[in-house]
Amino acid sequence: MGKRFCCAITLIAIGWAIAGLAAAAATDTQSIAVAVRDQALSGQSVAWSLLSELTTDIGTRPAGSAAERAAADWAAAKLRAFGFSNVSLQQFPMVAWHRGIEHVELLGAYGPQTLAAAALGGSPPTPAQGVAGEVVAFSSLQALQAAPAEALAGKIALITRKLVVTQDGTGYLAALGGRSRGPAEAAQRGAVGFLMRSLGTGGHRFAHTGSTAYAGDTGPIPAFALAAADADQIERRRAAGEKVHVRLFSSASFSKDAQSQNVIAEIPGRDRPEEVVLIGAHLDCWDLGTGAIDDGSGVAIVTAAAKLILEQPRRPRRTIRVVLFGAEEVTQPHAQPLGDKVYVRAHAADIGSHVLTGESDFGAGWIYSVSLPRGLADTPFAATLGELLGPVGTDISKWDAEHTGTDVKPLVDLGVPSFKLNHDGSRYFEYHHTVDDTLDKIEPATLSQNVAAWATLVWLAADTDINFRMGSQP
Amino acid sequence: MGKRFCCAITLIAIGWAIAGLAAAAATDTQSIAVAVRDQALSGQSVAWSLLSELTTDIGTRPAGSAAERAAADWAAAKLRAFGFSNVSLQQFPMVAWHRGIEHVELLGAYGPQTLAAAALGGSPPTPAQGVAGEVVAFSSLQALQAAPAEALAGKIALITRKLVVTQDGTGYLAALGGRSRGPAEAAQRGAVGFLMRSLGTGGHRFAHTGSTAYAGDTGPIPAFALAAADADQIERRRAAGEKVHVRLFSSASFSKDAQSQNVIAEIPGRDRPEEVVLIGAHLDCWDLGTGAIDDGSGVAIVTAAAKLILEQPRRPRRTIRVVLFGAEEVTQPHAQPLGDKVYVRAHAADIGSHVLTGESDFGAGWIYSVSLPRGLADTPFAATLGELLGPVGTDISKWDAEHTGTDVKPLVDLGVPSFKLNHDGSRYFEYHHTVDDTLDKIEPATLSQNVAAWATLVWLAADTDINFRMGSQP
Repeated sequence: MGKRFCCAITLIAIGWAIAGLAAAAATDTQSIAVAVRDQALSGQSVAWSLLSELTTDIGTRPAGSAAERAAADWAAAKLRAFGFSNVSLQQFPMVAWHRGIEHVELLGAYGPQTLAAAALGGSPPTPAQGVAGEVVAFSSLQALQAAPAEALAGKIALITRKLVVTQDGTGYLAALGGRSRGPAEAAQRGAVGFLMRSLGTGGHRFAHTGSTAYAGDTGPIPAFALAAADADQIERRRAAGEKVHVRLFSSASFSKDAQSQNVIAEIPGRDRPEEVVLIGAHLDCWDLGTGAIDDGSGVAIVTAAAKLILEQPRRPRRTIRVVLFGAEEVTQPHAQPLGDKVYVRAHAADIGSHVLTGESDFGAGWIYSVSLPRGLADTPFAATLGELLGPVGTDISKWDAEHTGTDVKPLVDLGVPSFKLNHDGSRYFEYHHTVDDTLDKIEPATLSQNVAAWATLVWLAADTDINFRMGSQP
Repeated sequence: MGKRFCCAITLIAIGWAIAGLAAAAATDTQSIAVAVRDQALSGQSVAWSLLSELTTDIGTRPAGSAAERAAADWAAAKLRAFGFSNVSLQQFPMVAWHRGIEHVELLGAYGPQTLAAAALGGSPPTPAQGVAGEVVAFSSLQALQAAPAEALAGKIALITRKLVVTQDGTGYLAALGGRSRGPAEAAQRGAVGFLMRSLGTGGHRFAHTGSTAYAGDTGPIPAFALAAADADQIERRRAAGEKVHVRLFSSASFSKDAQSQNVIAEIPGRDRPEEVVLIGAHLDCWDLGTGAIDDGSGVAIVTAAAKLILEQPRRPRRTIRVVLFGAEEVTQPHAQPLGDKVYVRAHAADIGSHVLTGESDFGAGWIYSVSLPRGLADTPFAATLGELLGPVGTDISKWDAEHTGTDVKPLVDLGVPSFKLNHDGSRYFEYHHTVDDTLDKIEPATLSQNVAAWATLVWLAADTDINFRMGSQP
């Protein structure tokens, strides 16, 4: 650690010299960075109260619902009251999915057992009498895809893959295809229903919902996630040589004329207002919990970080734009654009003015490192940031930022450089998309750490004239 | 530890001398005690497979249900196959309660929020439109009882008391009155509904059900337990100065002509078959989970322990009677007798022949100590037992056995001496009476430890001629 500290100091010294910045301005940038950081760490941020209000007063806020709209109005009012500029709602139409009554039963010689299950978002309703069939189990999406056409005719497919606990959430990305594409793949092979072991970690009996997508000319089939204990129940029956049968019921429904919206607010830049650092999170959440970790905490973190910057004695050089996206959690028939793409389409002419973007959508675990745009890790900017984040307990990652978030992906795909604040996600998937995603899962002190890391990075990025794109063009 | 060990050795030596037992017989009793203990510890017991079958093949088995009957038939078949004698079912009529569809909504300016809640067993249904009202919160049952008559007219009472984590479960006993008597007390003061913070520990969003009782001439009112996170939600609204309103709905129902049953099996005593050591557990469980900790593990532990004794080269001097009770979890209108009292009434003439009793109904946590009948702690019997339980990791408690279990309480009330194997219950109330009470909460190695402690104690008690009543008559 000692050696690294010395190197960092040297880099900072060289960095400021090379950048040719006047000493006074440099000090000022840095002193404000220290101020926002330390005010966040000392609990001056409003993140906790924002998160508590959002999850307590509004509660769950599924994409396209009245509650999601209420959350947007609440957020816009907060942003205006805090003094942000250009606060607006960007509305868009969507098809909303509504969970109905649902029931998954394991059948057998001793009578039916109710399994803990949750329909996947986008899963169609069953007929009134439900859908029953024999379970055919697959160890993964790939195993299901290897089954021939018609192999599942009249059957119910089950993917048993377990989610692996990882700090950075890559376990989820590795298994996600089972949920997003499994039902469609099963339907194409004649299945009348789909089950999966929840994409979740932890030892409690929660089903983890999430969206699934249907493509091609095969109709959608009812699809459910099972709690781990209930997937185990089926596994034990199968291990005992039993042919396992289940019955599925769901009265899910769709609203074709729903609306969602992004909430946008700005801190106009002092010198280069046309250059935008865009920071995002999403207001919608799954219907089961109150969306504290996904993504109320993100809303609270980016809003509180921006508010801290707004309250400093001078504004940053560049504009900071906060975008609280709508309808992040869902997919749409015919790939109808939702919050992320609606934003990008509205800004097609000025994508090039977006100098940097980042998103907070991985809970409120400790931020252990920051990933920067390609080529930035060895720059004076990174060295300065690394020094400033030392007291926050956050390193500069040796990895460039990748998969920085669903909502900013369309911007990233169009060449906007992105950063990522890497939360410890070891426990994130215990709660993710379950009824257990509630306020009590957030540690206030850690939330303050998150705000400190965000405020420091965003301030530095907005108060510099570095071209973050440079590194991405080798 | 060294000193204590020496004392124990001395006591054993004195003990055998005082008891005047022939050395050969003593060795034989002890060598069989060592055998059952070590066979259990080495995993020879069938407890795990019994528990897995019961919770996987039958699953949940509420009192008075077809599933409870299936569990009784399954248990009787197992006991017969194992070679137990006099295997029989003792049937009795009861009123069974059935959970229906249920829904608790927190009302407010942003629209209703669904709370995680579970109707208490015995809670009546609501009208079709539900019951709505303002919440009046009380910190405890005592605070509610201090409210004057009519204080709650048209209101919904809420008890906010938190369950304290204790190793021995006394936290539950201290708070239990809120559930068992709270709804009746609230009804007497005019309340139209009752809510309580679940009697549960742990940080997950589970409602903990359980039975409630109504007495007197006030009609029962709909009563629900809220998950801790949802009780917190109401607390935060109240702390913000809001008058909190909720709406309750339940379509619970009753079957007046239901049946339950005890399952009884014996190892007939070799010398004194008329003297009975009765060991119990209960087959029914709450409807939400599969009853692994409550009380599938008890069924598995006492059955496996007795089976180990049955398989030894000679039978014990006294009869060991295994009773797997029905309908332990519930209460009945007009105090109609259930499994425990049905057993006692059937044995009114021979209660005196029950020399000792104990029950396994506190999960499958580590058994850290054994409580013996009053006056037994300083006897050679206790010293021998203490030595034998050393390798099991179980001490002799300095406390006499009290509150040894619901099912054997009527026997204890009639003077039958009782013992208690004290499980570490620190985590028991995270799962108790929730959907999360499933097989994965049991550690196989700890279950084997439980069987070892049980088998050792029960063998010793059944192979001695000690009068366990002596100590209880000071």
